[in-house]
Amino acid sequence: MSHNSFGHLFRFTTWGESHGPALGCVIDGCPAGLPLTEADIQPFLDARKPGGSRHVTQRREDDRVRILSGVFEDDRTDGQVTTGAPISLMIENTDQRSKDYSDIRDRWRPGHADYTYDAKYGVRDYRGGGRSSARETAARVAAGAVARKIIGEGVTIRGALVQVGPRSIDRARWSWDETGRNDFFCPDAATAALWDEDMDLVRKAGSSVGAMIEVVASGVPAGWGAPVYGKLDQDLASAMMSINAVKGVEIGAGLAAAGMSGEDAADEMELKDGKPAFRTNNNGGVLGGISTGQDLVVRFSVKPTSSIRIERDTLDRDLNPVTVSTKGRHDPCVGIRAVPVGEAMMAIVLADHLLRHRAQKG
Amino acid sequence: MSHNSFGHLFRFTTWGESHGPALGCVIDGCPAGLPLTEADIQPFLDARKPGGSRHVTQRREDDRVRILSGVFEDDRTDGQVTTGAPISLMIENTDQRSKDYSDIRDRWRPGHADYTYDAKYGVRDYRGGGRSSARETAARVAAGAVARKIIGEGVTIRGALVQVGPRSIDRARWSWDETGRNDFFCPDAATAALWDEDMDLVRKAGSSVGAMIEVVASGVPAGWGAPVYGKLDQDLASAMMSINAVKGVEIGAGLAAAGMSGEDAADEMELKDGKPAFRTNNNGGVLGGISTGQDLVVRFSVKPTSSIRIERDTLDRDLNPVTVSTKGRHDPCVGIRAVPVGEAMMAIVLADHLLRHRAQKG
Amino acid sequence: MSHNSFGHLFRFTTWGESHGPALGCVIDGCPAGLPLTEADIQPFLDARKPGGSRHVTQRREDDRVRILSGVFEDDRTDGQVTTGAPISLMIENTDQRSKDYSDIRDRWRPGHADYTYDAKYGVRDYRGGGRSSARETAARVAAGAVARKIIGEGVTIRGALVQVGPRSIDRARWSWDETGRNDFFCPDAATAALWDEDMDLVRKAGSSVGAMIEVVASGVPAGWGAPVYGKLDQDLASAMMSINAVKGVEIGAGLAAAGMSGEDAADEMELKDGKPAFRTNNNGGVLGGISTGQDLVVRFSVKPTSSIRIERDTLDRDLNPVTVSTKGRHDPCVGIRAVPVGEAMMAIVLADHLLRHRAQKG
Amino acid sequence: MSHNSFGHLFRFTTWGESHGPALGCVIDGCPAGLPLTEADIQPFLDARKPGGSRHVTQRREDDRVRILSGVFEDDRTDGQVTTGAPISLMIENTDQRSKDYSDIRDRWRPGHADYTYDAKYGVRDYRGGGRSSARETAARVAAGAVARKIIGEGVTIRGALVQVGPRSIDRARWSWDETGRNDFFCPDAATAALWDEDMDLVRKAGSSVGAMIEVVASGVPAGWGAPVYGKLDQDLASAMMSINAVKGVEIGAGLAAAGMSGEDAADEMELKDGKPAFRTNNNGGVLGGISTGQDLVVRFSVKPTSSIRIERDTLDRDLNPVTVSTKGRHDPCVGIRAVPVGEAMMAIVLADHLLRHRAQKG
Repeated sequence: MSHNSFGHLFRFTTWGESHGPALGCVIDGCPAGLPLTEADIQPFLDARKPGGSRHVTQRREDDRVRILSGVFEDDRTDGQVTTGAPISLMIENTDQRSKDYSDIRDRWRPGHADYTYDAKYGVRDYRGGGRSSARETAARVAAGAVARKIIGEGVTIRGALVQVGPRSIDRARWSWDETGRNDFFCPDAATAALWDEDMDLVRKAGSSVGAMIEVVASGVPAGWGAPVYGKLDQDLASAMMSINAVKGVEIGAGLAAAGMSGEDAADEMELKDGKPAFRTNNNGGVLGGISTGQDLVVRFSVKPTSSIRIERDTLDRDLNPVTVSTKGRHDPCVGIRAVPVGEAMMAIVLADHLLRHRAQKG
Repeated sequence: MSHNSFGHLFRFTTWGESHGPALGCVIDGCPAGLPLTEADIQPFLDARKPGGSRHVTQRREDDRVRILSGVFEDDRTDGQVTTGAPISLMIENTDQRSKDYSDIRDRWRPGHADYTYDAKYGVRDYRGGGRSSARETAARVAAGAVARKIIGEGVTIRGALVQVGPRSIDRARWSWDETGRNDFFCPDAATAALWDEDMDLVRKAGSSVGAMIEVVASGVPAGWGAPVYGKLDQDLASAMMSINAVKGVEIGAGLAAAGMSGEDAADEMELKDGKPAFRTNNNGGVLGGISTGQDLVVRFSVKPTSSIRIERDTLDRDLNPVTVSTKGRHDPCVGIRAVPVGEAMMAIVLADHLLRHRAQKG
Repeated sequence: MSHNSFGHLFRFTTWGESHGPALGCVIDGCPAGLPLTEADIQPFLDARKPGGSRHVTQRREDDRVRILSGVFEDDRTDGQVTTGAPISLMIENTDQRSKDYSDIRDRWRPGHADYTYDAKYGVRDYRGGGRSSARETAARVAAGAVARKIIGEGVTIRGALVQVGPRSIDRARWSWDETGRNDFFCPDAATAALWDEDMDLVRKAGSSVGAMIEVVASGVPAGWGAPVYGKLDQDLASAMMSINAVKGVEIGAGLAAAGMSGEDAADEMELKDGKPAFRTNNNGGVLGGISTGQDLVVRFSVKPTSSIRIERDTLDRDLNPVTVSTKGRHDPCVGIRAVPVGEAMMAIVLADHLLRHRAQKG
Repeated sequence: MSHNSFGHLFRFTTWGESHGPALGCVIDGCPAGLPLTEADIQPFLDARKPGGSRHVTQRREDDRVRILSGVFEDDRTDGQVTTGAPISLMIENTDQRSKDYSDIRDRWRPGHADYTYDAKYGVRDYRGGGRSSARETAARVAAGAVARKIIGEGVTIRGALVQVGPRSIDRARWSWDETGRNDFFCPDAATAALWDEDMDLVRKAGSSVGAMIEVVASGVPAGWGAPVYGKLDQDLASAMMSINAVKGVEIGAGLAAAGMSGEDAADEMELKDGKPAFRTNNNGGVLGGISTGQDLVVRFSVKPTSSIRIERDTLDRDLNPVTVSTKGRHDPCVGIRAVPVGEAMMAIVLADHLLRHRAQKG
């Protein structure tokens, strides 16, 4: 069962609510002997953290990660390394304003999980969304940093925002370098500039927009994954769909594959530098659930932030018609911060499959 | 680990190759006391089976299912019922033509899993695709029939083909009744007629086309599912992406959610017949991973059949450039037969979550 | 969940009832490329099979195993090998006498699972014990044969009967060779001769006796297993306790460890042939859940056959006091046939842990 | 995979080393709405804690548990309750003396997991045994307290020490009340007094002794558990064998069942107060893996503390013969503190099976 865990051989379990004392995760299955300190994890958290861009929530969390177990440093080793024991990571919640939640306590905010949590559990930590808050993704990002240690330097994982609201990037202008230069992880400088303007309008209107994220892993050798129910693409779909607010996932040509012909869709093979290669990558680096050696390409959509200033109709717990409108800080586009989360989930899936791959090889 | 199993409390494990003596599955977790005979399963296999439509492979398999365990009939019960023991289902492969496979034995067919299976396993049952064949989905459909018994009559699961190649249905003409009247599970009679013509052209050209399937479950109460990594939509994404040739999955508004605004995307609530209701269903019946009580709406794309008559470039196992072209029977659109498979996977996910739901309720 | 499955990376799922058409298992996680034919499995089934000794049930089952999937033979390989796909094994039940079961249909036989199955499921396949029959262990033995292929020749797994009823072997006379020469898998010829006489008396009395089995694995290197909840000895305890009629499991000194002193119990280390070695093996080859490189030593008790000729008091389903007495064939000592089953479970646990071990090693 | 997790529907994952900053666990699967505060957990930790008896280690840990997530209190509920979200429990290590570990750093202490951890991981947190320390059991005890909340008042779980070294209790004098009155959880006052003397001798000698623990659950209804690989007794064996230093587990008659006859071993049934009852309990409350409604009776042996003052031969990491002898604080009988741990594991297994039971019942 996996209500709060993900993965098999690399497995992590997250815990914590938005406004509890802390959140964190326990990572099980990390091999021993990998160098690991908090400094290996912190930069990824910093990339995801609120307050990093003027377009994301102004909640200021330090998001300092602490490693509570699973590492050890002694003079026989080269610095601190993993020991094979479970790695417990904790991030304290430092910015829990003592706020008045009475306005949302009993109202089911449209687009949020308020109603469904009530239907399922009968009780709900309404402060900041409780367990359903996107703060949970900080634990994923931390686990992803550990996963990268397992995968090693040979595999590069990079994510980009490719659509914000109705406006998509121009793929002809794609530059990975550019993703580090703007507030959007956008690979196309020109589009990033337009999004800047778009977002100002959205914010002023008290509205929000959705987004599309693309995550690419380069350097994965052919042969990772497994057929039928252990498919690499299946696990990626599961990983991405588990992220808050994600409504769709596609691999390679994705949904567009429905409209293609067989001769266009099936990637032809050829010899390149003496090695098997493909002329196209409509399959996104996966055939039959197993990696082809090409780039692994995943895209997922994130719905617009549900917390908006515009007033919305809904019900309260006593079934009275009420309206709801968000006053405080909020992300006009939660999709922006989903980029490092998507990268982390890619790393986590790959670490899990690398370990599975090793198990099958003498 | 789940290389050949799916689900947790309702869990099934499939086995079998396209041209082995048989294929089947073992279902674990089916509660005792449910009436179950082969006649409950066979109709679903008949709906999926090759040879049922002039647009699908002419391979003629009887696909007769046998229940080998897990049921019992005695005079103290009302006919044959499940006993709580694992249910073993077997379908013999009756149409294994003794064919010459030498042309595909050593060639990696574009779009197929030939190259990746070789990369992973070093050995490959090339006859009819072996384990990577869509014949495995017969076991899913059989398991799905058992899953429906658990879910009961209150939930209706229906699938439809909504796009074939570049042509989509007109949703204004949607009729569930129509899906049973044409060769495409198409809910729009006019589009079905056009597809008939399209397919003739595709077949003549020796080509193939992709397709989009939509599966809807009605009657699921609010409160099924679980947050974070046991999300109902996450499991649906995993289920659908595990089907052969699927390249994308979406829930509700899906990928289009990326282009929406917050006020359009978040489904407002209202009182209807004294009960909580939603004005729209952009979230496809899931909020925070938990069912809302609305229709559960999933769509997935199936890439075009990779086996086509048109000649394609590729490599053989000795890395020689070769061409490959399919001669015998094949589906010009494997997506058609994916409709009953998608329905089965929906039933399987719901049966699993129903059992999980019961576990959490006193 | 694991109601009918065992293991993680080497995982098998069994199905079938005593008097159904067949029984079998599906093995998931077997690496590709291992030579495997039915001839590799059959000898282990023959060792376990009823009718092989005059002291076990005279039910005559051929117990012929069929491999239905997961293997392939072509001219590129050296005979038939595993493909990495799930291996489905089936054994048909050929000796289902059409017997009158009315005497046990509604009575809860003491020592059997009749009452508890009724309490749990409300319905029960009473023919020959249904799912609770020891026939299920045939599937374990078949799976064990495949597990041995994974472990390889370097590890030797051997089992012996060390106690039958009140009479134990003399360990000073232990000879592994002797286990193949008598009807009891007994390593002590003199005791085997006495058991022969004991058993005749037991049979004449219409009674039955319990037994103790010892299984030893030699050649397991140090470092297999995992701490805390993936302990090698924990998995062995789970494996042995899952066998029908087993009531106790011990590793190394076992229960006797309770009565020992620290200086006697803790195995001292020394250098032997330049390698770390232990002077004693009170820990049975496991420290902290991880193998030490010594012999892995497990013992388990099997309770006496519950089906006996001696009349016993019990209740029927309508709660009437009744008596029950077994007429037909039965094992006066089911423990004898538990020896190959124990060996199989040892092989299965080791195969699983070998694969896990590989996963953790670069 | 379950290297650091245990259970399925009630599942907990532990983390932490003996001398790290903290240890803890994450509990997944606890139903919502159960009252839970730290005060519900602390008494169980206090019962287990070092320093509570003069016969256990004088290490003084406060062992204060903190609930970091999964509970919520608001004015709509009656105090703090579980929310269905994962429950993170943390215990800080307050008594990590900055000690010189150089004497054990490179030596493999007999009976400890030093050698096997080195063999498996190549690196080892040697401070206080690191991950292999019995401190991990504090997390189990905390999780057990939550498990008891799920099981409810109807089931009583009690443990007792029934043997210390060579001396066993007199079962004729068994009194559950007595277990709370002495330092040994001993149900027999006279034996407890003798153990007091025994222990003084053991301590003076710098030695240690093993122990046997018995845990009994009363009030479990018939029908919990599952056949074959989800057996209640199998899970109990796994649970107990996962506790540090445990070498054997038995249910009901246990190992003694090997020496019994069928008529003595099989528990006859009768009607008692209009309900099915058993005349004896040789099966320890389990038949076919499913509870009978009788007391569930489990016993397990704990080997003597391996850390003793008496000098022992061993090797260091460079394979030099060395001696080792423990100077500081240690338990002469770790088995004493295993009583609350055994109770906790019983509660955990039962909570898991109760949830599984619910899943199968409409």
